[in-house]
Amino acid sequence: MTKTLQIKTSAHSEFINITSLAEMVVKESGIREGICLVFIPHTTCGVTINENADPDVRRDMITELNEIVPWENRYKHLEGNSAAHIKSSMMGFSSIIPIENQHLQLGVWQGLYLCEFDGPRTRNVIIQVN
Amino acid sequence: MTKTLQIKTSAHSEFINITSLAEMVVKESGIREGICLVFIPHTTCGVTINENADPDVRRDMITELNEIVPWENRYKHLEGNSAAHIKSSMMGFSSIIPIENQHLQLGVWQGLYLCEFDGPRTRNVIIQVN
Amino acid sequence: MTKTLQIKTSAHSEFINITSLAEMVVKESGIREGICLVFIPHTTCGVTINENADPDVRRDMITELNEIVPWENRYKHLEGNSAAHIKSSMMGFSSIIPIENQHLQLGVWQGLYLCEFDGPRTRNVIIQVN
Repeated sequence: MTKTLQIKTSAHSEFINITSLAEMVVKESGIREGICLVFIPHTTCGVTINENADPDVRRDMITELNEIVPWENRYKHLEGNSAAHIKSSMMGFSSIIPIENQHLQLGVWQGLYLCEFDGPRTRNVIIQVN
Repeated sequence: MTKTLQIKTSAHSEFINITSLAEMVVKESGIREGICLVFIPHTTCGVTINENADPDVRRDMITELNEIVPWENRYKHLEGNSAAHIKSSMMGFSSIIPIENQHLQLGVWQGLYLCEFDGPRTRNVIIQVN
Repeated sequence: MTKTLQIKTSAHSEFINITSLAEMVVKESGIREGICLVFIPHTTCGVTINENADPDVRRDMITELNEIVPWENRYKHLEGNSAAHIKSSMMGFSSIIPIENQHLQLGVWQGLYLCEFDGPRTRNVIIQVN
């Protein structure tokens, strides 16, 4: 079972919690044990897992990734968003989470995050349950 | 088939070889062809694949990751371990390895490593064979 | 269905588009819906997804990754290629792409790239369709 969902991002760089969307697709699928593949079909937006409690963790991640991959750095790509491409590849375009008892087997402190690096835009998220 | 295993880490930053644990679960499952998903349900500990021969490769990886993501850098998260969160997302929380003839199809020089970035702690590793 | 393909790389650092190879294996498999796992069985070569249009994006990625992980930096590993090991772990060794209607569900601007970080060499790519 595969679903494509749309997410509107509202900032240039932003981590958006999409855990409940993935949980909903798992529930709808009726699959009790298996894997959930969350795939981002873009090149300046990725996906990762990280802390779901203190929002400062996401803020620190965004700030630090901007220090590691500066927005301006003699890039040749004329669109000017090479940093967003690089950060997306560093986070990755897919998360694969085991499913047990019809629930994502995420850790207590884990949330699933869409990582917008060149927003605001409308992004697609493909969620496939096997 | 899904197993959750516990690993006690013994240093603040440490790469622990868990290849044989994953191989054991693959063997137990009896599955001849498929995929092995190794998932870390934490936020300051990741998983990666890398060289299984010279231990200096792991040492260099840990040292260099500490240069890229310094432990202190005006982070806002009060626990003070934001660098561990970022490094974990950079390595990722899952490894997916093809299985053939009831063995992980790892390359000759590849080992599977739990990446502790905020230890020592007791960590869970979820291994699912499909 | 699993295929191992060989790729000859021709530069020290290079992103090679392998999308059509993965599409060919998906077609051959006859599988209409599922997942395609692309796995690199090496430790100084990874795989990622990124822009398939402007080649400057790949050039910027290679240049910027070399700034983030410098080739020389007091590494201990005697082979002298620790940077290649680290960059490979940062990109990752597997890409997992959903399949629909017997095609990879990649975004319009997405291509699948083998990331050579210590070439030129002959590399294997394992493509498994489930």
